[in-house]
Amino acid sequence: MKIAVDAMGGDNAPKVVIEGVEQARDLYPDLEFDLYGNPDAIKPLIKNDQRLHIIPTTDDITMGEEPVRAIRHKKDSSIVKAATAVKNGEADAFFSAGNTGAVLAAGIFIVGRIKGIARPGLTSVLPIAKPGASRHSFVYLDTGANAESKEKNLLQYAYLGKFYSESVLGVENPRIALLNNGAEEDKGDTLHKAVWQLLNAQDDLNFIGNIESGDLLYGKADVVVSDGWTANAALKATEGTAKMMLTLIRHGIMNGGLRAKLGYLLLKPVFHKIGQAMNTSTYGGAVLLGLKAPVVKTHGASDVLAIKNTIGQIHTMLKADLIGKTVDFFTDNPEVDKSVKSE
Amino acid sequence: MKIAVDAMGGDNAPKVVIEGVEQARDLYPDLEFDLYGNPDAIKPLIKNDQRLHIIPTTDDITMGEEPVRAIRHKKDSSIVKAATAVKNGEADAFFSAGNTGAVLAAGIFIVGRIKGIARPGLTSVLPIAKPGASRHSFVYLDTGANAESKEKNLLQYAYLGKFYSESVLGVENPRIALLNNGAEEDKGDTLHKAVWQLLNAQDDLNFIGNIESGDLLYGKADVVVSDGWTANAALKATEGTAKMMLTLIRHGIMNGGLRAKLGYLLLKPVFHKIGQAMNTSTYGGAVLLGLKAPVVKTHGASDVLAIKNTIGQIHTMLKADLIGKTVDFFTDNPEVDKSVKSE
Repeated sequence: MKIAVDAMGGDNAPKVVIEGVEQARDLYPDLEFDLYGNPDAIKPLIKNDQRLHIIPTTDDITMGEEPVRAIRHKKDSSIVKAATAVKNGEADAFFSAGNTGAVLAAGIFIVGRIKGIARPGLTSVLPIAKPGASRHSFVYLDTGANAESKEKNLLQYAYLGKFYSESVLGVENPRIALLNNGAEEDKGDTLHKAVWQLLNAQDDLNFIGNIESGDLLYGKADVVVSDGWTANAALKATEGTAKMMLTLIRHGIMNGGLRAKLGYLLLKPVFHKIGQAMNTSTYGGAVLLGLKAPVVKTHGASDVLAIKNTIGQIHTMLKADLIGKTVDFFTDNPEVDKSVKSE
Repeated sequence: MKIAVDAMGGDNAPKVVIEGVEQARDLYPDLEFDLYGNPDAIKPLIKNDQRLHIIPTTDDITMGEEPVRAIRHKKDSSIVKAATAVKNGEADAFFSAGNTGAVLAAGIFIVGRIKGIARPGLTSVLPIAKPGASRHSFVYLDTGANAESKEKNLLQYAYLGKFYSESVLGVENPRIALLNNGAEEDKGDTLHKAVWQLLNAQDDLNFIGNIESGDLLYGKADVVVSDGWTANAALKATEGTAKMMLTLIRHGIMNGGLRAKLGYLLLKPVFHKIGQAMNTSTYGGAVLLGLKAPVVKTHGASDVLAIKNTIGQIHTMLKADLIGKTVDFFTDNPEVDKSVKSE
């Protein structure tokens, strides 16, 4: 199994990308890597070139660039060339820590959608932080690939999320919930009321009803389905608040004199555990589900551990044949598409 | 100035309501209160009946009831009678800790909208938690009165929020931002792109552009304007995450043995400060802006302090003549309405 790696993407590329890939290579003997990027920058960083191949590229898509324009014009960039290799069957998955929009655009326009999928959904695995919860993470999509969504898209996200939860996280009969602004069946705007009915009508979905954004980290569902707009707002608010709480604690300790610093030393194991529980790096990158191959994006600020874990996540997706299962389902069940009146 | 109080609303009503009102009464000599509710339940709780009058009601709207149905049928409930008194000029403001939907419905259908306002916006004052920030709170609307919004509604929220920020919080030339899923001008769905242009085109608004939900507590804006759907999702995610972080800390301390408990004792002042910074009770209740009188709702679980502070907030609104200023503006500026093509 071969992964096409954008070696040039991310705040600390290519250094942390190469280091993360080498650690993953040592962990998974059945993985090979094609590293797309500037050989002069990449080569000196490689410690051991076993199962690593450099594919030279000359162009760069930077973080601020307009994504669709960039992938159209920068044909010799690491993102475009790596995605094209996946499209051509030269690699099985595409990994990048670069420009999110460009990675998504390369996924959709180069790797391509699975037949029957209207809109791929950006999927994150998020921590269940609640102490004592029986599971440690849940699948959340669409976290922002689409600013505007239709009923059909959300129905398809439910299946995409279900297959991911089953195949990659090993959850049996995952509980699927709809992100909405209230718990009851009749809550929400026109779209969410209709999606509730649609999800509830599917015999092969273990639909448990609505979930509110305040309950995301509480482990009530294994898959949370949402339009990209709402999920993105809730995700950013969750991350921003967690960060702010940690800032407040750090600030309080720094300005609380010796007493606070002593308290911090004693509570260090507790803070360490909280940091681990809330750390999204543990759970890998964001996957654009609904494409013909795994296309996975980690945060630009990802460290070596996050990159290694994300490669592990891709490894599981490939081993479990997530894509094959998804393709089979949407081939066998065209009614998932037909059952929807709108769009 | 007289406030019509729903004495029966809230998890601990009428006890905490009466206590909070009495504390506020002692603090503001220019306030009078009409307490709507069951006299047998209210009377024994009153310590001093100065400037307090009981208006007997016989019916109750409970927390789970369908709001519009409830206010139509329960004419002798504390919510309906208190709102009707405000409508008839017998009181200047309406306060409740009861069924949110019923309070909003009573505000819209009984107290009534200011001429020119299409949809009132539910408004919260939220803490700016960032250490060292020059201000301590910002105005946030619509936090959920409307699941579906149009351009015009968001433009009106900007003015309603601006007047609130100026009159009640004393902010000069408040910075107004649009909650969106990206920082740049061209971000968002059709609605948010159009609202950006509209806000930017108003000479009398200090529009500073988009804000993302992850930055809400960072103090970048004095007024954050949003459709009710998105603001509600971001607000609940913010509250849920803050609560989860505190749960994780508490759980870690309880299960961390003597060492963690000692650490906690040393860090207690730090945690206390964080609790204060994040405590929304300090900032009063949610105001339904755009109505002919202040209609203010606090959380059902509000304690005496939250109720006292909310009465203080209503006192400031009345003293500053927020409603009069809003009415004048929408009378003098009908073009705020006409400038919008849609709706």
